[in-house]
Amino acid sequence: MKLVHGGDVYRHPDVIDFSANINPLGTPPKVVEAAREAAGKMEHYPDVCCQELKKALAAYEGVEEAWIRCGNGAAELIFSLVLAVRPRRALLYEPTFAEYRQALGSWGCRVETVYLREEEGFRLGEDFLEQIKPGLDMVFLCNPNNPTGLLIDRGLLERILKKCRRVGALLVVDECFLDFVEGREQWELKPYLESCPHLVLLKAFTKRYAMAGIRLGYCLCSNEKLLERMAAVTQPWNVSAPAQAAGVAALKEEEHVKQARNLVLRERSRLRKEMIRLGLEVWDSRANYLFFKGPAGLCESCLQRKLLLRSCGNYPGLTQEYYRIAVRKPQENDRLLEALGELLGKGSV
Amino acid sequence: MKLVHGGDVYRHPDVIDFSANINPLGTPPKVVEAAREAAGKMEHYPDVCCQELKKALAAYEGVEEAWIRCGNGAAELIFSLVLAVRPRRALLYEPTFAEYRQALGSWGCRVETVYLREEEGFRLGEDFLEQIKPGLDMVFLCNPNNPTGLLIDRGLLERILKKCRRVGALLVVDECFLDFVEGREQWELKPYLESCPHLVLLKAFTKRYAMAGIRLGYCLCSNEKLLERMAAVTQPWNVSAPAQAAGVAALKEEEHVKQARNLVLRERSRLRKEMIRLGLEVWDSRANYLFFKGPAGLCESCLQRKLLLRSCGNYPGLTQEYYRIAVRKPQENDRLLEALGELLGKGSV
Repeated sequence: MKLVHGGDVYRHPDVIDFSANINPLGTPPKVVEAAREAAGKMEHYPDVCCQELKKALAAYEGVEEAWIRCGNGAAELIFSLVLAVRPRRALLYEPTFAEYRQALGSWGCRVETVYLREEEGFRLGEDFLEQIKPGLDMVFLCNPNNPTGLLIDRGLLERILKKCRRVGALLVVDECFLDFVEGREQWELKPYLESCPHLVLLKAFTKRYAMAGIRLGYCLCSNEKLLERMAAVTQPWNVSAPAQAAGVAALKEEEHVKQARNLVLRERSRLRKEMIRLGLEVWDSRANYLFFKGPAGLCESCLQRKLLLRSCGNYPGLTQEYYRIAVRKPQENDRLLEALGELLGKGSV
Repeated sequence: MKLVHGGDVYRHPDVIDFSANINPLGTPPKVVEAAREAAGKMEHYPDVCCQELKKALAAYEGVEEAWIRCGNGAAELIFSLVLAVRPRRALLYEPTFAEYRQALGSWGCRVETVYLREEEGFRLGEDFLEQIKPGLDMVFLCNPNNPTGLLIDRGLLERILKKCRRVGALLVVDECFLDFVEGREQWELKPYLESCPHLVLLKAFTKRYAMAGIRLGYCLCSNEKLLERMAAVTQPWNVSAPAQAAGVAALKEEEHVKQARNLVLRERSRLRKEMIRLGLEVWDSRANYLFFKGPAGLCESCLQRKLLLRSCGNYPGLTQEYYRIAVRKPQENDRLLEALGELLGKGSV
């Protein structure tokens, strides 16, 4: 079976899941508790206004409540953004998170693609900027990028933002994995929200607090009319009551996130060094996952050892030799290194 | 504040909620338990295939798994149906559930409307059939209708189904409230699914098991290509893990639903009789709610007595004199009758 997305523990029970990029420390217990309490009141419809959650998010992000829209995961917001904008032409690069293209394609938008090149270390370059031309309605960026974990040069990012404004394109920047980046403040585009109503930032609880199963994401944008149009193309009860309650509880868990960030920093560095020693090509990810190149067939071999990796063979521009793994706890990472050592040492892949 | 939908207990805490039409016996304890257990594993993404839930639904409904699509509530499915069909012209009647029109309008579809007339008891008539003409892409029906609770004549329903096939229109029948109808089998359109790939049935866990807060609905259709197109316009993780687990548990709760159905039958009849005695005009609903006409201002007066009613003033074709109430437990219904008696007797509304 071909895995189209990471995290499919349903077809692969009893594995250590390196395929989904979530907080390695798991869900904070108080978040689980809040969701459980809300589940006990599930006879009531969820709050269509997400009032309490939006208030907590506004305080957490330091932005106005009116600039926030919550979704059934950030993925839902990608689809509703496209429906709200109704773009005829959009620009993105590959490889990146598959849902931007799926959402644009489902609407029937023409998608222009810049391919990140291995020769350039999969880094976004000036050629992307040159593709931002009048007639373009929407541009998607993922920072740090999924699956590479690479950050976009700050100067380039700002030039992209300016050029999008000039040509009249909405710039959507997915910052879902920025939470695990060291010194993330210097990469955030939040300071531009007020002056740039053509900027949308996507964020998720999924990775930051390990809440993938309950579905909760949000976006920030100072163009309130755009957020209203997103609401108009979506059902009123899109965010479940347990997700709203879990979200409010999660925003109090900064210490949990900080610890996870420190763990990721240490373990990512160790994992990368060891994997390079094993002969793998491992890119310099700044996120909570590592992107690497190795022999084809590594997923299947690891799966036999109960380790679930993400094959990147279904990303446009990549082949079966590319993989992504989440950075997990030290002992789990040891298990992975041991398996990779056996497989690569024996040449059994 | 104007209530656009029922069930807003967030702006009105500590009320008895007659505005949302859910199972009066509440959520079965095992359903809450299943959701709570799943919340403990929320670090994992939900199953994108809804495998276990679809299997349980196929057994429950007696249809093929391939004919089922699950959604973040039935409301999400209404939106994804419209996006999958991309209709240019659609037909519906008013008053009915607001989301059909919202979904069609957000897509930019021209909506033709037949108004149900009070002189005809708000019953759907032959004039609706006459509006089904070539060029129509989509037709929405709600059976029993929300907010009236009235069923569509079976013969008319079958003629609508046939005519939709002839003109090439997709017929979407919302059967979300059919679970509480006595002898519901004779109203179900399920037997037509196989021979009619242009028929979609909408169903929800929301009302049947009082699961509004967790968001779970599904639709049945033998046109598998249409279900695939719905998937293509939706994110892959649209149904949360707690919702999937709660759904599997709920399908074992037929006794709970049966008891609720019997309770609704007894209490609806008693409520209606008493309300008519108080001078209200109460239609002959077959669902778990009653639609009635009374003096304007009844919602506000009842809210002062901590009873939340659904004003139907925002339904196209209705005014502030129309209301809907859910049938609840005997003591709760007593509270409502008492309040209505005071308000109407004193002429204080």
